[in-house]
Amino acid sequence: MGELVLTTFDWVPEPPRGFVRDLRIRWALEEAGLSYRVESTPFRERAAGHFAHQPFGQVPWLTDGDLTIFESGAILLHLGELSDVLMPADRRGRSDTREWLFAALASVEAASQPWSFFMFSGDTGENPMGKFFDDFLYEHRLKHMETVLGGREWLAGSFSVADILMADVLRLVDRFDGLANYPACRAYVGRATARPAFAKALADQMAHFAAAD
Amino acid sequence: MGELVLTTFDWVPEPPRGFVRDLRIRWALEEAGLSYRVESTPFRERAAGHFAHQPFGQVPWLTDGDLTIFESGAILLHLGELSDVLMPADRRGRSDTREWLFAALASVEAASQPWSFFMFSGDTGENPMGKFFDDFLYEHRLKHMETVLGGREWLAGSFSVADILMADVLRLVDRFDGLANYPACRAYVGRATARPAFAKALADQMAHFAAAD
Repeated sequence: MGELVLTTFDWVPEPPRGFVRDLRIRWALEEAGLSYRVESTPFRERAAGHFAHQPFGQVPWLTDGDLTIFESGAILLHLGELSDVLMPADRRGRSDTREWLFAALASVEAASQPWSFFMFSGDTGENPMGKFFDDFLYEHRLKHMETVLGGREWLAGSFSVADILMADVLRLVDRFDGLANYPACRAYVGRATARPAFAKALADQMAHFAAAD
Repeated sequence: MGELVLTTFDWVPEPPRGFVRDLRIRWALEEAGLSYRVESTPFRERAAGHFAHQPFGQVPWLTDGDLTIFESGAILLHLGELSDVLMPADRRGRSDTREWLFAALASVEAASQPWSFFMFSGDTGENPMGKFFDDFLYEHRLKHMETVLGGREWLAGSFSVADILMADVLRLVDRFDGLANYPACRAYVGRATARPAFAKALADQMAHFAAAD
């Protein structure tokens, strides 16, 4: 392992504060007690150097010595393999962690993100596609997550990077009260975000952006 | 490695044939020359046993001995580690493969999937959110993928499971002519799908569903 450097924006507007994806990485680093530095890249002017690390001009990315990694799921997988508090030790638990990292993004967030765009637009009630994306999130995803999370404390046997990712995805859904009918999902987010490492990560992100105001 | 068994639906309607996600897994298995069996689960009645393997009631899932894995990204990562033709051998290439597996799903497909729902709905021209999802796919994703793919043959140094996933995601975009303004993306899909393993996987999927008609 080389020096770990997490890069996020130097500043963002108020609404996304507390929800910028560097939070997921801070949270994992804090859980594991790994030493790291945070660097900033300009939000307003995204230079070629930014795209060299993150081809879509987003954040975060992590460097570990000579490796540079973007995508929160890939970074969490990398960190999970650096610390035994972030991933179970057994073969089944490790495989389940990887599977749920992908599921949090490709199944749950793939439905919650377009739904949240509709919520932000304020266009949910009248737009004929609004009902479609409601159903996609609620009936095709959260209904099933409710069954999964009603039967276990954490996704992969013990707490892991998959829980960091899934809890953060579901936390964004609940920003618009989307978990109101899914008590097991809401309780899971509550369990996850009650962890001291989450509180530290959130406070650090808020302080980072506030310092640039 | 145990016996590899890929499970897909017994039957699907005409429109998704050739695009059901077991294709990604068949393609990787064919590239690697790994021995595998294909099993079927009912499309019309999804039983508890199905949800035990795939909590959202979708396909595919893969069993490898006592492991059962869902999510096409997680299955491709698993297979990538079983065969050196599916992932570069060096540390950087392996990390890049993992990163692009996540990016294909969480960045590109997360934008192309809602866009394709609008295309299927036929509601693109008049729906005020249609323009939003067009921009999300074209300006925030494909424009950047065009730069990436204009500069390299494959995503992670040599052909890998990340290319299988990204090419399949982009192939679905081009079903609605979405790559018309992205010649490097279209050429990449052409390069990937010209591989004999893709042709075999596609023919096998078509034959599998046709046999159930």
